[in-house]
Amino acid sequence: MEIKALDETVKGWLQISRKQILAAMQQPLTVATKSNRNDLVTNVDKANQAFLIQQIHAAFPEASIEGEEGQAAKADRLAGLVFFVDPIDGTMNFVKQQANFAVMIGVYQDGQPLYGAIMDVMRNEVISGGPDLSPNLNGEPLTPPLDRPFEASLVGISGPMAIKNRLHLGELGLASSGVRMSGSAGMEFKSIALGRLGGYVSWLQPWDVAAGLAIGQGFGLVVTRGDGQPLDLLEAGVVVAGMPQVHAAFIAGMNA
Amino acid sequence: MEIKALDETVKGWLQISRKQILAAMQQPLTVATKSNRNDLVTNVDKANQAFLIQQIHAAFPEASIEGEEGQAAKADRLAGLVFFVDPIDGTMNFVKQQANFAVMIGVYQDGQPLYGAIMDVMRNEVISGGPDLSPNLNGEPLTPPLDRPFEASLVGISGPMAIKNRLHLGELGLASSGVRMSGSAGMEFKSIALGRLGGYVSWLQPWDVAAGLAIGQGFGLVVTRGDGQPLDLLEAGVVVAGMPQVHAAFIAGMNA
Repeated sequence: MEIKALDETVKGWLQISRKQILAAMQQPLTVATKSNRNDLVTNVDKANQAFLIQQIHAAFPEASIEGEEGQAAKADRLAGLVFFVDPIDGTMNFVKQQANFAVMIGVYQDGQPLYGAIMDVMRNEVISGGPDLSPNLNGEPLTPPLDRPFEASLVGISGPMAIKNRLHLGELGLASSGVRMSGSAGMEFKSIALGRLGGYVSWLQPWDVAAGLAIGQGFGLVVTRGDGQPLDLLEAGVVVAGMPQVHAAFIAGMNA
Repeated sequence: MEIKALDETVKGWLQISRKQILAAMQQPLTVATKSNRNDLVTNVDKANQAFLIQQIHAAFPEASIEGEEGQAAKADRLAGLVFFVDPIDGTMNFVKQQANFAVMIGVYQDGQPLYGAIMDVMRNEVISGGPDLSPNLNGEPLTPPLDRPFEASLVGISGPMAIKNRLHLGELGLASSGVRMSGSAGMEFKSIALGRLGGYVSWLQPWDVAAGLAIGQGFGLVVTRGDGQPLDLLEAGVVVAGMPQVHAAFIAGMNA
């Protein structure tokens, strides 16, 4: 897999996705709930997932696909080439804010990250990267984020987990420089790549984390389960992403 | 006071402030703490406050000034023309993120709001407005925000107040569509004006709220103390800002 070629291909799809999403936003949305009243899906999520699946199948017929919105066959294994697709990450923001949502694609080979891309649709900004591709914003190289001590770092934490102090995350938030919440995993991983957050903890699905984990391989981001063990990219669960000092402090505090 | 002329004058100052801040960001910052370890002030806050005070004194010699960074004489009354100045709102974001901070100016006559302006420095976006000036973003009129039910609204809540469940704000956050936290009162008022948040609660200083309150007069924003009583613009305290349904639900829930 030639990563630069993959990067160009994926960015081309994302630009088409973006135009289609912006056009669809001119029409009334069809909104439905999924697991709970704040877990939404719209006609635009579904249409964009269908578009991206079509592109992936055409360009990489051998690939498996893991997608958010239920049309894709569930990959029962990570063998071979796997694309994780989140057609609209932050659907609540998409519906209520018409901003602060992302399209994300993560590409893995035999369970190992190859490449990720996060498109901030309204700002027309794509961050991409991977173990063999330096993180970049619309092609411009990014300065690697600082590895600051936890108490000197801003952190992203899931709102419900912080408020309920799940796994001590409320206390940990208070011990940081401050908690920020965007409502979109993609926006949080973008903020980490830009050095604006030292880390992020939430309960995430594989397609919420696959792109950010892959991009983070290019700048030393540590991404694990809540207990510090490696992620299982076929299961939802607590994800801790952070620069080394922030990640270590989260894991220690969450398991104290 | 001719509001359109005031708007042009203030926006002119804000553009100069912005250029000076961007230039200062190329140099190392001098950072000090104020009331606690997460309450910061930098040389840039101080320099921008000095600049804005100079402009206000020159253009409006009769005006009193309330500013964040201690150089201004404390206004002991609201009589006459009063400018509230926040030279950098969201100083923690300024220091850690180099983004998501604002310069804010609120203008009051005998305690009544006349005009407010919030500049999002890194995005070069100014929202201004007042009772006699429709809210606008860089001069483009804004669509009035929706007055949604609380449970269908995204809300901004101070991180520590939500995590500590002060005044039931943790529970209220969980009852909304979701909590968002930017770390800057100016960014929160901007999000309300853009319809991205239905309301915002935090402990604020007068210069944190003066601009947003004034702009909100142009689109039906309700801004009170935590007990629902009118704000005292000479004192710090809990501020509840919201579109009518969100504001009413916050006040009811916080005082239950």
